[in-house]
This record gives sequence, structure tokens and C-alpha cells, in this order.
Amino acid sequence: MTTQPTPPPAAPATAPPTEWVLTLSCPDRPGIVHAVSGMLAQHDGNITESQQFGDPSSGLFFMRVQVQSHASREELESALAAVAGRFEMSWRLDVVGRPVRTLVMVSRAAHCLVDLLYRERDQGLPIDVVGVVGNHPDLADIADFYGKPFHHVPVTAATKTEAEDRLRALVTELDVELVVLARYMQILSDELCRDLAGQVINIHHSFLPSFKGARPYAQAHDRGVKLIGATSHYVTGDLDEGPIIEQDVERVDHSRAVRDLVALGEDVERRTLARAVRWHAEHRVLLNGHRTVVFH
Amino acid sequence: MTTQPTPPPAAPATAPPTEWVLTLSCPDRPGIVHAVSGMLAQHDGNITESQQFGDPSSGLFFMRVQVQSHASREELESALAAVAGRFEMSWRLDVVGRPVRTLVMVSRAAHCLVDLLYRERDQGLPIDVVGVVGNHPDLADIADFYGKPFHHVPVTAATKTEAEDRLRALVTELDVELVVLARYMQILSDELCRDLAGQVINIHHSFLPSFKGARPYAQAHDRGVKLIGATSHYVTGDLDEGPIIEQDVERVDHSRAVRDLVALGEDVERRTLARAVRWHAEHRVLLNGHRTVVFH
Amino acid sequence: MTTQPTPPPAAPATAPPTEWVLTLSCPDRPGIVHAVSGMLAQHDGNITESQQFGDPSSGLFFMRVQVQSHASREELESALAAVAGRFEMSWRLDVVGRPVRTLVMVSRAAHCLVDLLYRERDQGLPIDVVGVVGNHPDLADIADFYGKPFHHVPVTAATKTEAEDRLRALVTELDVELVVLARYMQILSDELCRDLAGQVINIHHSFLPSFKGARPYAQAHDRGVKLIGATSHYVTGDLDEGPIIEQDVERVDHSRAVRDLVALGEDVERRTLARAVRWHAEHRVLLNGHRTVVFH
Amino acid sequence: MTTQPTPPPAAPATAPPTEWVLTLSCPDRPGIVHAVSGMLAQHDGNITESQQFGDPSSGLFFMRVQVQSHASREELESALAAVAGRFEMSWRLDVVGRPVRTLVMVSRAAHCLVDLLYRERDQGLPIDVVGVVGNHPDLADIADFYGKPFHHVPVTAATKTEAEDRLRALVTELDVELVVLARYMQILSDELCRDLAGQVINIHHSFLPSFKGARPYAQAHDRGVKLIGATSHYVTGDLDEGPIIEQDVERVDHSRAVRDLVALGEDVERRTLARAVRWHAEHRVLLNGHRTVVFH
Repeated sequence: MTTQPTPPPAAPATAPPTEWVLTLSCPDRPGIVHAVSGMLAQHDGNITESQQFGDPSSGLFFMRVQVQSHASREELESALAAVAGRFEMSWRLDVVGRPVRTLVMVSRAAHCLVDLLYRERDQGLPIDVVGVVGNHPDLADIADFYGKPFHHVPVTAATKTEAEDRLRALVTELDVELVVLARYMQILSDELCRDLAGQVINIHHSFLPSFKGARPYAQAHDRGVKLIGATSHYVTGDLDEGPIIEQDVERVDHSRAVRDLVALGEDVERRTLARAVRWHAEHRVLLNGHRTVVFH
Repeated sequence: MTTQPTPPPAAPATAPPTEWVLTLSCPDRPGIVHAVSGMLAQHDGNITESQQFGDPSSGLFFMRVQVQSHASREELESALAAVAGRFEMSWRLDVVGRPVRTLVMVSRAAHCLVDLLYRERDQGLPIDVVGVVGNHPDLADIADFYGKPFHHVPVTAATKTEAEDRLRALVTELDVELVVLARYMQILSDELCRDLAGQVINIHHSFLPSFKGARPYAQAHDRGVKLIGATSHYVTGDLDEGPIIEQDVERVDHSRAVRDLVALGEDVERRTLARAVRWHAEHRVLLNGHRTVVFH
Repeated sequence: MTTQPTPPPAAPATAPPTEWVLTLSCPDRPGIVHAVSGMLAQHDGNITESQQFGDPSSGLFFMRVQVQSHASREELESALAAVAGRFEMSWRLDVVGRPVRTLVMVSRAAHCLVDLLYRERDQGLPIDVVGVVGNHPDLADIADFYGKPFHHVPVTAATKTEAEDRLRALVTELDVELVVLARYMQILSDELCRDLAGQVINIHHSFLPSFKGARPYAQAHDRGVKLIGATSHYVTGDLDEGPIIEQDVERVDHSRAVRDLVALGEDVERRTLARAVRWHAEHRVLLNGHRTVVFH
Repeated sequence: MTTQPTPPPAAPATAPPTEWVLTLSCPDRPGIVHAVSGMLAQHDGNITESQQFGDPSSGLFFMRVQVQSHASREELESALAAVAGRFEMSWRLDVVGRPVRTLVMVSRAAHCLVDLLYRERDQGLPIDVVGVVGNHPDLADIADFYGKPFHHVPVTAATKTEAEDRLRALVTELDVELVVLARYMQILSDELCRDLAGQVINIHHSFLPSFKGARPYAQAHDRGVKLIGATSHYVTGDLDEGPIIEQDVERVDHSRAVRDLVALGEDVERRTLARAVRWHAEHRVLLNGHRTVVFH
């Protein structure tokens, strides 16, 4: 409809744009969205998905944006740094769908490992499991089947420090971004938890009421609960008390023996963990003190 | 607090049979089902629904039978007594669908009361609410609308004994079979709990993890839970620890304020309580120590 | 059927700001978020909640923003009109929490009406039910209890046009913004559906597989389904085929008689309808062709 | 610790009893339970779990009993035959926990196969997968990992009869009791369906409303559904219309692309199929015309 010739595109603009995911948090105040969207507009960014949340109780603001742009990472990071400085932002920029380098830690129970590896291979879960660590050798065959290196790192009271050193070395050597405790039955040291804060996801059973002992399913059976559940959370020093990412439950009745509760518990554990890992890997989980904001 | 439903009139065999519901429990051993079904067959009984459960952990056997028969209550009770003696049974015989005489106790929150009265009137919940007791007068209008007598029984530290006496008197005068604590915010005395054992149903919120304080929804919000729940249970001396009848949950996310959690909590509380009351009134709940068997 | 909420009084900046909710949709292209957030920033707006969604399949962009500002409605509307012109936007501005003037239409079944009125009174559902219309008089007492005018508008083949005229008159006189068909068993004319497009919400049973006949619960029973459900949707000419707002299901088993399915169906219907009405009244539902975007 | 010699094993009564599962159906009339329980009592049977259901609409009675007894299979079957004759019963006797010989049929989608083989190996699902048949070779590696023979049986219009002959041969040679169509994308012939009636379980997607076309998830996305589901059923000639064993749903929202619906659909399909297979293998599913009775 216009006689104006289309300006010749700059050479790189003919390539499809990259889709970026930007997550950020900062003290809440007017102008944040405008500043961020302005910066993205200056880089020819087309926002395809965006969510914000201002938490009245913590006074913090959270944002997740997916944006298509031809700008380079350096250009975007430089522009972001300027905005971030003005608003005291924590932020992170990544490419949508990039697999997160993940180390899975297991003991003897297979259900969570099988499910994660299946979902990576067949369901587009955006993780790249670069290794499986077991304090027992039992699950090596599953790792093998999916072509994943298995590291047997036994843990005893005497070797605990040595085992954690091995783990730290693996995290460094393999450039690990995420550690998943997939029914790993050992407690990490407080120091390791602090060093990997926000990068370790755990799954544990949960019940109404809750049971703290060594045989929780037996306790739940004894108490006659009608629901059993699971909670997936970031690990802090206080093992089962870190920020919650996802919870789910399964219904049971009086006819279930303890072994039935365990089997049903495995189902709810694996699906709860898989959701938490997916949302983390898609940069949908932001920390808000000891709570999470989950933009799913 | 006993309830003898009016015996059905002796009738010629051409009248439709009465449908009875028999519940029983006893130490598990061979021959129970055969003895009970034989006794029923001798009275021309046609079993329309039956469930049994033998609990390996308690060694007890539980049974619920619905049976059509022209036999009179006296004939059936006499025959049952003979079988019960052989097997050390506890048992109960009632007519299917007979409304259970129920006293509902409330404070200020309306959600459970509204729901129970609606279900009695419109949904065939087999209870007959013979009175509503409030320690505050706020809900009198709801009771009035449904044509139910409202008794304002204030409770203070000074009047607690007097209030319980009033409650006991109502239970006796009104021939009450079931007391429902529909968000009644007072704790019953241990003695009253014992006297009404198995006849008082309570509803309380429940969370993963659980919170014991005065403002549980604020605690749950502060902890960032992803599920809120409710538990309906029989009352024992230990208020929230009686045998569980039903539990349910509702999903929440980070954007929910405390008032949202309270509103969602009310929804899950009222439906959990309604199910527990229905199953009790249909004689589907049997006590198994501090657990329940629910034949639904 | 237009509704102009009373504009908040002009106030000095020291008064608390008004919290506005802005919803909009337009063809998706770069710069929308930046333009909207810039306009809001110019009016000292503090965004407290915001969600966006770009739909690749329809090419449309949707946005919902809650923003605190001292600007007047006139100022905001004028600024919005300028932005809207640039982007071909449909938009709507309202005050957060303002009750939506609602007309509820019923026949004989009480469950949805009881639930909506209870939630308006006790649960903060932001609607103001300005009238209840019944084609039967049965539910007048419930309307009375909640202090709502009840209009008996019988419908027969002969009086259908007249009845719709009455309905249109009520919508105008009462300044109705939303019509809820709360198990109203009459079909509205295509013309009325068009005139009230996007302002009428219906609830209907739904099953897997679906049944179209007159006695759907009997058909579902006959087919032996294990789930029964409900769908709440905007009404278009094609009665049960309008844009879906919410769906939910309830589990059933072989032992359920048709009357049990009906009772459980009522539970799932009322909670599904209540959610749809809440999300509509909070301006969380945007139309996307014959689909919806629900920002909950 | 004792000097008493071990009693000779010949004494049958000192060996632990076998736990049997008996399922039966017949026209409903008085005396069935008494006759069955009497027969079991005569063989020193201790009933550990029992459920009955009389269906008023079909006039049929259904029963499932687990019973411990030292009687031999021949003794029990002979006694059962006598009772069955009196009541025109269909019945089946099996040992509790005996793995059911199962053939799994697949195409290219892995999710159901992976889940079934995992549950057989690690979760006590009482099936013995004696072979996997694929009309494509893609899933041979998964069968290999679990040590299961994989049979590649391609199907084209020209070879369909031949392929079914091969399938029949496998069923005979491998003594197959159950065929699971684990996302097998071929339609079995009516004749084969009839020959294997009650022995073939299928899983298919199901939606509210339901979609019949070739790309159901695309249709569901286009329609804007809020729930996606799955139905597991016995196969009859009419492919997706056989007796339903189990159904389940998963919640979705407007932001989900078709590929997300497919991934979530896989989750609900695999867990729905796994439950149906477990209940069938535990003899908990009885046919009631074109419906099922499921004693879970």
C-alpha cells in the first residue's frame, strides 16, 4: 500500500531471532516494567510471554519475560546491567529451551531417576543429565541404558567429607547447573547446601499430619491417613524446610497396606519432582525469601 | 443418646421388604461371613450391597451389609445376638436412609452450616438437624431460614461447665445421635469427648507441613505452601488427633493472599465435612482403633 | 447494558491511590507492553499484578494489569485511548473489587443459586446480585432470605418472546452487567445471545464421552463412566458450545445410582460455575475467538 | 535353639495356606453369599477381603473374594462347580499375585510401554510381559533393556490379515492372557476383538467435549478445553466404545501449545492405563454388560 521501499535489512536480521527468557526480581516500585520493556523495545524485542508479581508482604517484585530479538547476548546483558543498577535487580538471561546441565543423585529407589531420564529423552524436559551419582551401585544399569555416566560414590560416616569433595569436583568438572536429589537418602552438609543455594532440588514425602520418623509410610498407615503426598523444594541447610516448588497428593483408603502406600507414594513423588525440575529448567521459579514464585 | 428407630410394622410378605443396613466388627477368624449370611438367608434376606475388610495389622474384621428382608427388627436382632455372641461382635442394625438426628455446633463462620442444611434439604443427606447451637448468635438467621431451632450457648472460661451441661441436656432432650462441630471454635472437655465417643465429628484445616498456631492460614502463606487441606475426624480428648474419616486438598499459588487462602480453605472444609457426615449417616464408617474403615 | 462505575472522587495525592484493573487485547506486535507501561508510569502508576499472553495461533496479544494510581478515570481513559488507537486495542478499565451487577436466572434446581448468594454474602465474590429470575417460582424463598428481588417469568412456547422482552427490560432497568444461567433450563434466542455476547455465563454437565440427550446422567450411568464433569462457558447462539471458562470433574464408580450421579454432578456444577463467575467478575477472562484466556 | 525335629513337610495343614482370589457373577437372588461362604468354610477358608455388588439395573450380582485355604485347586474347583450350577454363575479362580501373561502392543510412542515395564520390574505390577509387538521397530531398545522379546510386525492395508495371523499365533504360543494396546495405532479386526473379548485393554485420549478426528489434541487446543483426559477400556469391535475401566484428567490452560497438551496427555494416559492393567491383573474388574464393576 506504500511506495516507500522497504529498508534493506541488516544482514543478521534475516536469520530468525533468538528467543530469550529473562527473569528478575527487585524491590517493588513504579517504573520497573516500563524500564524493562523499553530496554527490550530498543533491541527490537518482541515479547511473547510475560508475567509479573508484586508481593505486598515482602515488598519485592518478580518478572519473567520471553522475548524474541536479534540482539546479541552481549548487547542485551549490557543494556540489562544499566537497568538493573537503577532498580537494584537480580536478573538472569538465558535462551529458551537450552537444556540445563544436571547431575542426578540417587540411592536405591529407581522411580524418580527412570522418570527424569524418560522425560529428558522423550518428553522434551529441557535438562541435559551429564551424570548420575549413586551412593549405591544399584541404578547403574538405568543410567547406562540412557547413555549417562554413572558415578558410584559410597558414603559412610568416615567418608562423608571425601564423598562431598568428589561431588564438588563433579559439579565443577561437568559444569553442573542443577543437582537433583532423586530419592538420594543422604543429607548434604550445611556448607554444601549454602554453596549450591538455589541449585539443588529435593523430593520428599509429605502427609497430613506430618511424620518425622524413619518409616513415614508405616506411621501414615498407622494413623489412617486418607491422603499421601509429596513436596519438591530447594535444599537449604534445614533439609526438608527449603522453599517449596510443588506439592501434590494421592488418595488412599483403609484397605491399603504399607507397601501399597509406598508404591502410590512413588507415583506422586516422581510426578511432583518432574514438575519442579521442569519449571526450574524453564526459569519459571524465582526465590522470594523462603518462598517461591512459580510462573507456570 | 440412644436411638431406636421405630420398628417397621409387621407386614404380610406381599408388602415390599425393609432394606436394612448391618455393620459389625470382631476378631478375624474363619466362618464370620458364612454365619452372618446364613442368619440373613434364614430370614429371607436378599443382600444388595456388602463389603468386608480384614485388617492384618489389628487382627479385626469389619463388615457392612445392606439386605432386604420382611423380618421384623426383633427377629433380626435376636438372630444377630446369637451370631454376635459366637464371634464377640460389636454390631449395629438400622434402616437404610433413616435420617440421623443431628446437632450442629457453630461459632461465627457460616460455610459449613450453610452447606449441611442445604444438603439435608436439597441433596438427600440422610440427617435430621434437630438443632443448631452457637456460642455466638451470628448464624441464627441461617438456622431460621431452614426452620431449625437455634440455641445460643455462650462460652467463657467462667461458664464453660455450665455450657457443657446445657449441651448434654440438649443431646438428651433432642435424642441426638450425632454432633457435628461445624467450625465450632471451642474445645470440648475430655469427659464430654469420652461420653460421646464416635458420635462427634469435627472439621479442621490441614497443611503440608502442618501448622499448630492460632493463625494457620497466615503461617501457611508465610511458608509458601502449594496445597491447603482439610481433615474431618471423630473427636477424642486430643482435639485434632481423632480417627480420620476424610481428607481433601485445594491447590494454591504464590499470588494468593491470606484472605484467598481462607476462602479456598472454606471450600475444602465444607466439602470434606459433608462427605464425612454423609458416610457416617449411611453407616459406612467403622472404628478400627484410632483409624477408620470407610466403606464408600 | 453498560456500566460506568462511579468515578472515584478527585483527591489529593496524599489519599490512598485507587487500584485499577486494565484488560486489553490487540494484534500482537513489538512495543505493546512498553507503550502501556509507559502510559501508566506517566500517571504515577504502580503495577501490582500483570499478566500477558501472545497467542501464536490467533496472532493476538492479551494483557491484564492491576495498577495503583492517583490519576482520575478521565485522565487514564484519555491516555488509554491514545495508546489503543496506535495498536487497534480493545480495552476495559475498572476499579479492583467493584461488584459486578448480576442477574441470576434459575428454574427449579437450587444448588447453583444457593452457592452464588452464599459466596456473595460471605466469601467476597465481587458480584452484586440485583435480581433473580425464575421461570418457576420454586426458589423465591432463597432469594428472599438473601434479600434479593425475585422475578417469576414463566416461559411457554407461546410466551417465549414476551419472556425475553421482560428479561431485556430487567437487564436495562437494573443496569445489569452479567447474566448467570444457574441451571436455567430454557434456551435463549440467538438474537438475545448475540446482544449479550460475552455477558452471559452458563453451566452445563459434561462427561467423557459426552451425552447430548435429555437425561444425561442416566446416559452416563448406562455407559459406566468413571468421571462426571461440568463446563462453564459464555453463551453463544449454539447453547453448549460457547467459549469455555472452566471445567472440572468428580470421580464416580459402579456402585453409584443415577440419583448419586445427579447429587455429585450438582457439587461439581456449583463449584465450576462459582469459579467462572469469580474470574469473570475480577476481569480475568478475555475472549480469544471461540476460546478464552484466563489470567488466574 | 530347639531340639524338636522339624515336622515332616507332608503334613499339609502346617504349610502356609494358599491365598486364592475368586471372582463371580450371576443373576441376583437370595442365598448367593451364604452358599459361597459356606463352600469356602467347608474348605477351611479364611476370607481376608471380600466385596459384593448387586446391580439393580442389570439384575446381576458380582463378588470378589480373597481367601486363604489349604485346599487344592481341584478341590476348590469341584466345590465351586456345584455352587455355580445352582446359581448360573460365571466364575474364575486364581492365586493372589500370580503374574498375568501379557503381550504389549505398541507403535512409536514410548510413554505407556516404559511405564508398564518399569512398574512390572520395580513396583510389583502383577503382570509378566512375555513379549512386545510393534508395528514399527522404534521401541525395540526399551524392550531389550527390560529383557523382553520384541516382535516387529508391520501392518499395511495389504498385510493386515497376515499381521493378525501373526498376532494370533503369538497369543497361542506365548500362552497370552492379556493384550495391552499401549498406544498401538492400528485397529484390530472385529473378529479378533470378539475372539479376545475381555482380554484386550486399550488406552485413548478423551476430552470434554470429545473429539473424534485424527488430531484430537489439535482439536482440543482449538476448542480451548481446560481439561484433557484419558480413558482405559476393554476393546470391542467398536474401538473406543468398549466397557470403561478407568478415566482420569489433567488440567490445562490457555498458554499451552498443542505439543504441551500432547506431553500432558501422555502423563494422564500412562497412569490411567497402568491403573486399568493393575486392576485387571488383580482380578478386580468384572464385566457388567457394556459397563464394568471395579472392586478397588
